[in-house]
Amino acid sequence: MEFSSERRLDDGGVVERAFTLGDIPGFLWTPEAAGTAPLILAGHPGDLTRMYPRLQARGRHAAAAGYATATIELPGGGARPRSAVAEQARADLRRALAAGEPVSDDVVDRLVLPLVEAAVPEWRAALDALLGVPGIGGPVGYSGGIISIGVRLALVEPRIAAAVLFAGSYVPRSIVEEARRVTIPLLVLLQWDDENNDRQMALDLFDALGSAEKTLHANMGGHTGVPQHAGDDAARFFDRHLRD
Amino acid sequence: MEFSSERRLDDGGVVERAFTLGDIPGFLWTPEAAGTAPLILAGHPGDLTRMYPRLQARGRHAAAAGYATATIELPGGGARPRSAVAEQARADLRRALAAGEPVSDDVVDRLVLPLVEAAVPEWRAALDALLGVPGIGGPVGYSGGIISIGVRLALVEPRIAAAVLFAGSYVPRSIVEEARRVTIPLLVLLQWDDENNDRQMALDLFDALGSAEKTLHANMGGHTGVPQHAGDDAARFFDRHLRD
Repeated sequence: MEFSSERRLDDGGVVERAFTLGDIPGFLWTPEAAGTAPLILAGHPGDLTRMYPRLQARGRHAAAAGYATATIELPGGGARPRSAVAEQARADLRRALAAGEPVSDDVVDRLVLPLVEAAVPEWRAALDALLGVPGIGGPVGYSGGIISIGVRLALVEPRIAAAVLFAGSYVPRSIVEEARRVTIPLLVLLQWDDENNDRQMALDLFDALGSAEKTLHANMGGHTGVPQHAGDDAARFFDRHLRD
Repeated sequence: MEFSSERRLDDGGVVERAFTLGDIPGFLWTPEAAGTAPLILAGHPGDLTRMYPRLQARGRHAAAAGYATATIELPGGGARPRSAVAEQARADLRRALAAGEPVSDDVVDRLVLPLVEAAVPEWRAALDALLGVPGIGGPVGYSGGIISIGVRLALVEPRIAAAVLFAGSYVPRSIVEEARRVTIPLLVLLQWDDENNDRQMALDLFDALGSAEKTLHANMGGHTGVPQHAGDDAARFFDRHLRD
């Protein structure tokens, strides 16, 4: 992991570092204060440049509460090489939506599964590198979308102790089955009137999740209208599960 | 309103008073500290004696956060006279459940609507009396079940500025229609695997509620297993809406 820039935000309370992990760009926000901060991996739907303002806001908010936050670009996101399979699946998805047809399981699988397969090892490699950075320690949380990536990480990465999952549609059936085997504490955030997502699919996935401790918070405000108090809830959830 | 007893709890931090309003028994918990406390009306499913431990815990918790909490017995609850209509509806409900039959709209209407009609004026009369007690002021919140009573109060009682509604089944269709006209901020608490309630009915009612600001918090743990953090969420909800 190579740091390419570093600057101070919020009157020096937060350090923002850009890095690359091989050819994958990423960002790390850490509280300036000395000590070892628990780490939150911040998931997103891809394209760090587009997502940067919201991710930085999440990183600064978490740093104020004593957490380090890191994120990396998704496969096919931003300037990273597109996959022909994903591009074809995305075209098929657009065609189905434009025609008012249901989105087939096949399209969902081709859209999401290769992305999960490619992304999850990258996030785990990022975790290896990030836990070697002075001032960053465990335990680790995951927070964000794409929810299929979050579910797979929650299942296979034992260093992730708790996760805040942002509800989304187009979850492959095989990921719903994986969800049944997840056991870590979970908070699922759902925007009730999300124009981009299928509410019933999100509720079905929440129901499937195997964790004994799981909470669903549904709010109004549309896809990007997550209220401030939902972010505060997520911070308190991590306080309960990442601070012993 | 006649106070019949008074005692101090929590090393004097909370004053508990039993009262009667006509022939209706009730309790009032207030913070000992001087000043005017916002009032929370604590709803419950009936039978104050049975519910007392949980209601007192809610009252003490709220008092620690600076709120007064009051509750009154429901019509037909505890030692209050039973209604023949309600008893017949309850018998019909038990028969349908025992036979594994769906509960008809007619049974739900006979079970719930007379209770709402009788209870809501009593809670409003209690509010009149409680707001005359020194140290208790507005604004007022409602917190608890029976959700049909909460919806009706939220709709007709302008002094109630925000409500935390505990999800439950057996909501008459006419109450779902009333829910569409509710406009105050709402937090709905749902126990996801509540053995006593119908989850889909609760989600449908949440969807119907007309408030622009409404939030659903779903937790695991069964009917009486509401986690402590859900109670904390309710307190913060009232802090946002009853403290200006």
